[in-house]
Amino acid sequence: MQDNQTKSNKDTNKITPRTLSGFKDRLPKEAMAKSKLLSIVSKVFENFGFMPIETPHLEYADILIKQGSDEIQKELYKFKDHGNRDVALRFDQTVPLARFISQHRNKIDLPFKRYAIGNVFRGERAQKGRYREFTQCDFDFIGSSSIACDAEIIQVIYESMIALGIEEFTIWLNNRKILNGICKYFGILKDNDISNILRIIDKIEKIGENEVIEELSKMIDKNSVKKMLEIASIKQNGDSTEFFNEISYLKDWNNDLKTGIEEIESVYEILSNLQMDRDTYRVNFSIARGLGYYTGVVYETTLNTQRGLGSVCSGGRYDNLARSFSSENISGVGASIGIDRLLSSMETNSKRQTSARVLIICMNKNHFSYAYKIAETFRRSEIPTEVYPEINKIKKQFSYANSKGHEFVVVIGDDELQTNEITLKNMTSGMQMKGLSTLKAIQLLKE
Amino acid sequence: MQDNQTKSNKDTNKITPRTLSGFKDRLPKEAMAKSKLLSIVSKVFENFGFMPIETPHLEYADILIKQGSDEIQKELYKFKDHGNRDVALRFDQTVPLARFISQHRNKIDLPFKRYAIGNVFRGERAQKGRYREFTQCDFDFIGSSSIACDAEIIQVIYESMIALGIEEFTIWLNNRKILNGICKYFGILKDNDISNILRIIDKIEKIGENEVIEELSKMIDKNSVKKMLEIASIKQNGDSTEFFNEISYLKDWNNDLKTGIEEIESVYEILSNLQMDRDTYRVNFSIARGLGYYTGVVYETTLNTQRGLGSVCSGGRYDNLARSFSSENISGVGASIGIDRLLSSMETNSKRQTSARVLIICMNKNHFSYAYKIAETFRRSEIPTEVYPEINKIKKQFSYANSKGHEFVVVIGDDELQTNEITLKNMTSGMQMKGLSTLKAIQLLKE
Repeated sequence: MQDNQTKSNKDTNKITPRTLSGFKDRLPKEAMAKSKLLSIVSKVFENFGFMPIETPHLEYADILIKQGSDEIQKELYKFKDHGNRDVALRFDQTVPLARFISQHRNKIDLPFKRYAIGNVFRGERAQKGRYREFTQCDFDFIGSSSIACDAEIIQVIYESMIALGIEEFTIWLNNRKILNGICKYFGILKDNDISNILRIIDKIEKIGENEVIEELSKMIDKNSVKKMLEIASIKQNGDSTEFFNEISYLKDWNNDLKTGIEEIESVYEILSNLQMDRDTYRVNFSIARGLGYYTGVVYETTLNTQRGLGSVCSGGRYDNLARSFSSENISGVGASIGIDRLLSSMETNSKRQTSARVLIICMNKNHFSYAYKIAETFRRSEIPTEVYPEINKIKKQFSYANSKGHEFVVVIGDDELQTNEITLKNMTSGMQMKGLSTLKAIQLLKE
Repeated sequence: MQDNQTKSNKDTNKITPRTLSGFKDRLPKEAMAKSKLLSIVSKVFENFGFMPIETPHLEYADILIKQGSDEIQKELYKFKDHGNRDVALRFDQTVPLARFISQHRNKIDLPFKRYAIGNVFRGERAQKGRYREFTQCDFDFIGSSSIACDAEIIQVIYESMIALGIEEFTIWLNNRKILNGICKYFGILKDNDISNILRIIDKIEKIGENEVIEELSKMIDKNSVKKMLEIASIKQNGDSTEFFNEISYLKDWNNDLKTGIEEIESVYEILSNLQMDRDTYRVNFSIARGLGYYTGVVYETTLNTQRGLGSVCSGGRYDNLARSFSSENISGVGASIGIDRLLSSMETNSKRQTSARVLIICMNKNHFSYAYKIAETFRRSEIPTEVYPEINKIKKQFSYANSKGHEFVVVIGDDELQTNEITLKNMTSGMQMKGLSTLKAIQLLKE
């Protein structure tokens, strides 16, 4: 009988090759695109002085559980290791960051700017477009409560989007203090109630205004609900100076609103001096961010042409990052780029399945040595080059170039070997040039 | 009472921040060095037309177990997931590659050149310098049995080492067929016995010649042992033409030896035409490689000044890669760079803990907006720049620059703001220049 867990083809005693539900392979074209995106954002982070750190995929379970919400505990990949320790795969990179900061506190100067690109694991119910292993690109500014950091995070998001070639995007800003202030004004004072209200408001785009009103009515009187939602749906549409004038009356409502709005004004003061397109960042009072730990400015980023995709870069300011591990109060602000989501939003028009621009094909085994020499010369001129490693019908070799998408094919035959020249074929135009020297070919390829 | 698994400081109810034994964090300087190495080798791989692929860290356990040796089964991180499936963390990237090729066979053209950079997990006994999670950089040439592929793998190893700035290294080549031929000559004919012999010979550098002789004597008569070891310790010391002449008599011993030596000669024929330093690759009959699946040419790479470090890049040719999953016979050849080992071998003289060359410091909150503008201009000129986000004593800000290792500090005060200029201090020479325009500063920084 066959074990339920082992899928084999009965006839051949082979195992059926398959991945776990919610986990995926990336074929070369997609993996290449992803690795390009990651190298672009890393470069942006480093340009701002954010440095990479690395933490293990596997941690003591208690490290991860303490800070996680109930939801996350259910989703945790938790098990006993060989030493009977309770261990778990990380579900985000923020809890490991808190552990890291506390553990290496004596080697770290604050403020500490770090980025981390890595995979995290969540045993969520499998859903279209949701994966159980996915990549996060976190960047955080730790150990400073200066509003300049909050402004810088927005700048990093902006520069990342631009560097990734995304032009039509909006960074939505809000401040938890503004939301607290609104709640307080309507008599919601307890932290727990405020959290519940924010969670409901946060769902407005998902479940619609009517349902939000209904849910809120259970907690606040009906007249206030409407007024409250009106305030919570305030959004900056045009010029920021005008916008801040229009909402300045809210500063008189209470201190939370006053501080919250003034903090965003300070962020704007720094940003407005920069060469950033001012239409790309806007205040939006309805942004609450699901996670409980934000305490100040919060961000979401949407693609203007694909709002339905959700936020591709979110974050905010949090106090007391490392509270589970240390009594030192460390504040921080950061965000995370959802690289898998971004990748899925990008059209991949290119038919190229290879990094090599040129394929060299030989007619005869004796040509390999010459072919490898030419390939070496091309590569040293920064022209990625591949040699077809077998002697095959020329048609088959050309069809390999066609399916992989090489731009050029170099053909080596007896003539070429004798004259120390090559034949170069442009795979797009179909044009073929005979009798080229290697140097001349490189010039053509560099054009 | 306190749970045995949960380490907390009793007084404060805090969790002690700690990593699992055999797992490690990387602080910025080390993480940065590693990420540089990885980006260098990726570029080399892509220059040869190797493309990245990605497979999950977590797989169905049966996929990983079938192909693994007993040793590896003991070391596997295996557990039940939320759906009660038997799952495991990958212990290498070759088994997932075999699964990948079989699963996506209809989307993959052979020959298929892929690289994969990722972490693997082995629950080995904790040892100094051995980790339970470590990074592998695999590159493989799948689906061609041409000897040109074997030559190319050596070329990729060579170009990787050069690109990594390593000059003193040796790539040791051997062929499993040569070892089989030697065994057969001395009457060892069964595969199992051959494997045992090779495993013993492979340990010669570790346990010494005497112990090897003793162990071999249990299987072969004493006179033959000595002769056999003499052959197995043949090593190319000088010119390759001379070397192949000297050992040509072995080709007459049997067909395995003949084919094995001729394959290496073919590899040399391709390589000798290239601009590769000929002293960097040498034949060494004692290289056997532990893993059972190699069938042809095998490689190891050692650093000439740090032989004790062991091999930093090993691999070889294997037949029938995907035999667990498919009846198609797919041959391949590849190698894996041990990036953690290489990293540990490199001196890190640099005191720089940051990617930013410049730190901008402000005397007053009103300077932030100007400081951020200058930082933006620097960054757009490809000068990575950081702004100190708080107003602090100037001494404290300079000490931050000193400990992080910024090359330059820009000081912004009221004077600078008024005149639209900056003051630039070279942190190495201590020289300070006042009244610079941003443009002039960029020129100086670019020099």
